[in-house]
Amino acid sequence: MDVILYPGTFDPITNGHLDIIERALKISNNVIIGVLENPSKNPYFTIEERKEILRDVTKGMGNITIDSFSGLLVDYVKENNVDAVVRGLRASTDFEYEIQMAQMNMKLSKEMETIFLMTKSEYSYISSSLVKEIFAFNGKIEDLVPDKVVQYMHDKK
Amino acid sequence: MDVILYPGTFDPITNGHLDIIERALKISNNVIIGVLENPSKNPYFTIEERKEILRDVTKGMGNITIDSFSGLLVDYVKENNVDAVVRGLRASTDFEYEIQMAQMNMKLSKEMETIFLMTKSEYSYISSSLVKEIFAFNGKIEDLVPDKVVQYMHDKK
Amino acid sequence: MDVILYPGTFDPITNGHLDIIERALKISNNVIIGVLENPSKNPYFTIEERKEILRDVTKGMGNITIDSFSGLLVDYVKENNVDAVVRGLRASTDFEYEIQMAQMNMKLSKEMETIFLMTKSEYSYISSSLVKEIFAFNGKIEDLVPDKVVQYMHDKK
Amino acid sequence: MDVILYPGTFDPITNGHLDIIERALKISNNVIIGVLENPSKNPYFTIEERKEILRDVTKGMGNITIDSFSGLLVDYVKENNVDAVVRGLRASTDFEYEIQMAQMNMKLSKEMETIFLMTKSEYSYISSSLVKEIFAFNGKIEDLVPDKVVQYMHDKK
Amino acid sequence: MDVILYPGTFDPITNGHLDIIERALKISNNVIIGVLENPSKNPYFTIEERKEILRDVTKGMGNITIDSFSGLLVDYVKENNVDAVVRGLRASTDFEYEIQMAQMNMKLSKEMETIFLMTKSEYSYISSSLVKEIFAFNGKIEDLVPDKVVQYMHDKK
Amino acid sequence: MDVILYPGTFDPITNGHLDIIERALKISNNVIIGVLENPSKNPYFTIEERKEILRDVTKGMGNITIDSFSGLLVDYVKENNVDAVVRGLRASTDFEYEIQMAQMNMKLSKEMETIFLMTKSEYSYISSSLVKEIFAFNGKIEDLVPDKVVQYMHDKK
Repeated sequence: MDVILYPGTFDPITNGHLDIIERALKISNNVIIGVLENPSKNPYFTIEERKEILRDVTKGMGNITIDSFSGLLVDYVKENNVDAVVRGLRASTDFEYEIQMAQMNMKLSKEMETIFLMTKSEYSYISSSLVKEIFAFNGKIEDLVPDKVVQYMHDKK
Repeated sequence: MDVILYPGTFDPITNGHLDIIERALKISNNVIIGVLENPSKNPYFTIEERKEILRDVTKGMGNITIDSFSGLLVDYVKENNVDAVVRGLRASTDFEYEIQMAQMNMKLSKEMETIFLMTKSEYSYISSSLVKEIFAFNGKIEDLVPDKVVQYMHDKK
Repeated sequence: MDVILYPGTFDPITNGHLDIIERALKISNNVIIGVLENPSKNPYFTIEERKEILRDVTKGMGNITIDSFSGLLVDYVKENNVDAVVRGLRASTDFEYEIQMAQMNMKLSKEMETIFLMTKSEYSYISSSLVKEIFAFNGKIEDLVPDKVVQYMHDKK
Repeated sequence: MDVILYPGTFDPITNGHLDIIERALKISNNVIIGVLENPSKNPYFTIEERKEILRDVTKGMGNITIDSFSGLLVDYVKENNVDAVVRGLRASTDFEYEIQMAQMNMKLSKEMETIFLMTKSEYSYISSSLVKEIFAFNGKIEDLVPDKVVQYMHDKK
Repeated sequence: MDVILYPGTFDPITNGHLDIIERALKISNNVIIGVLENPSKNPYFTIEERKEILRDVTKGMGNITIDSFSGLLVDYVKENNVDAVVRGLRASTDFEYEIQMAQMNMKLSKEMETIFLMTKSEYSYISSSLVKEIFAFNGKIEDLVPDKVVQYMHDKK
Repeated sequence: MDVILYPGTFDPITNGHLDIIERALKISNNVIIGVLENPSKNPYFTIEERKEILRDVTKGMGNITIDSFSGLLVDYVKENNVDAVVRGLRASTDFEYEIQMAQMNMKLSKEMETIFLMTKSEYSYISSSLVKEIFAFNGKIEDLVPDKVVQYMHDKK
């Protein structure tokens, strides 16, 4: 397997995301982290900030490319010769949404493969939106995101 | 990714299984199909017959090894230098069972990775036990299993 | 819609089943209740007893035929010119099983339609096997099954 | 069964919807397609356009009435002598929502029946909102909606 | 168990909420009902109105304190010496969300316990938002909320 | 809350069970652990052995009574003046079964309350049957059950 894409909003990257990235690097030594530009959402970090944080947090982990994209995932996959997309699965509600997207993407492009990794049990309750909500009320996020992200969140506050 | 193991009972192999095997071959060019020896179940085909059928049906598809094993999956994975196990996911009840097994296996062996592929929508309702039940009542299984399996099932009857 | 089939084991018929039968009679004035002969299960009532109980309990409710069958549902449907099969849905685990069966049956016979009715909330926790378990330990089943069934269960004891 | 109502937003009608309509026509030869006026959503097509598209796409299919409504489903059902409402079910998250609505509607009006049909597996991943998202990014929607709808979507663009 | 907190938006309190409060009073004779101040939502009743309604509806039921709070649940729990939080569970989609929150809260504060009570089947389809939607279209809400709430809703209209 | 019952088969007790027991002791200082005698299952430990292990493992934890029972849970609850039953919840499939049992038990006895605690994420994949399966194949169960249980399992082998 040559090129794996890990798409997401990463606003911000959590320990759950980081675990998926480490495991993706064992499946392929060429991993693209693709930050999805979603104009309808009101993000905490800009796309550029998220890319910078991802670069910082994943430094030295392996052959990782940080990129961003808008539009359809299948188009990005074709244009960048991605062999498979990787996604983390946490709960059965995740599952229903992800199976719909994976089946739709197989319909849109026969070549497109999605690989699912189960989130480790200790990360199963973490999501970027929960992290932001806890941080907004001055809660402790130290165990939920990489140390550098704690700093970035304080700097942005 | 060097070696991928696709474990299962394959009693018999269905079109859904075959689709997962084809897709696993794009992730790794070294796929082991591991027939699980489960003494408590009352199988239609013996382990040896299932291995023969798998060899026949997957002939020419790529670098596939057909094997069987008993005991813990994590032990087989260690002894055979398997890099990842692949599993197909169909429905959210599958999901709950598979996430439990994947998390337990990560606990038993930190090295063990499980990769999940979503079953294509047209195969989502097929299972080996349904195939056997339909066949037992002389129902049509031609669209559910590879042609060769239809023949093997009739020969065994 | 001419003929509707309501298949099941009905060992015994519960208030939840009876509610589905009443509602099926509003969809079609020609309802077949088909008792599935399942040799692998160890039933409380024989097929003949279950048919007798169903006849007794549904007397005067409308145009209902009580029948039994073995083999594939799609075969019974074809041979008896059934227009649609009706099933009650209680919980999302029911749902996963029922959608698999409905999709498989559509595959086996393009003509075959399955109609699902949601169980009323007050019957959502009732199942034949729970009724038998409670009865075995002398629990109260009066609110779970029709009065006549309470009598039949005591007579059989 | 005299009159069946198939309610929805149909913005736009998909192949999954069309399949449910075809199957509803086998259950009743008097089907109303009721476009729900939902002021809080920001639709692609107006109510009038959706009614026109529905009329065009279902032309010649059978005795279908195209209507729109606002307010409570139970009120529309009473005022129009609807015998049952039909809904398509795709996944277990659909199921949880639909069972809540069906049980609430039975509470609001004892007469109100909801009939569920399982979406065919090949349509299980299609939704109107996914179709619009794919179209917005110039993705291929030809296999997801009727041909005429592709044209209507381009004309409106 | 000394102090139990039942948090929620209660906009408005439903018969399902009231049932949970009655049952919570059997677990602890010191129950706080905590109205969550959620500025992002557009409520029907103000926080003060909701507190007044809760006081009125729960009058004479037992030792109940009506309070409101913003910020993190774990902070409120610590500051008010709450021994456990109580939550009602209705469906498996509720469950996925609630298990995520409970596990996150255990992470944020090892002392924090969440107790879940299953909603009675006759209340399983009721939610505050459905009540408001039905009321907006002049539907009957008499069986869904306490009598006093019907009056409060009309007065506010 | 005076008396809480924690029922189960405990064949054997796992770290997940032990965690629930510790948390139940914070809800009530009078906890009964009730070993369910289920003649249809083929257990690893006898009822007497399981009671002995439970006594050994929970020694010094608080005011715990170890008992066993057969028959209906509601009958045991009435005869022993139990105020509430406590159950651990792991996944949404657990949930569907547990909600059915809780609603049935409320039907059989209006007084009967069931309290659910969410399993901590690090125990979410552990079950007694998985422990036995892993042990049977000489897998490591040290992190899954209390140390004393490891010894008891070896002694019984």
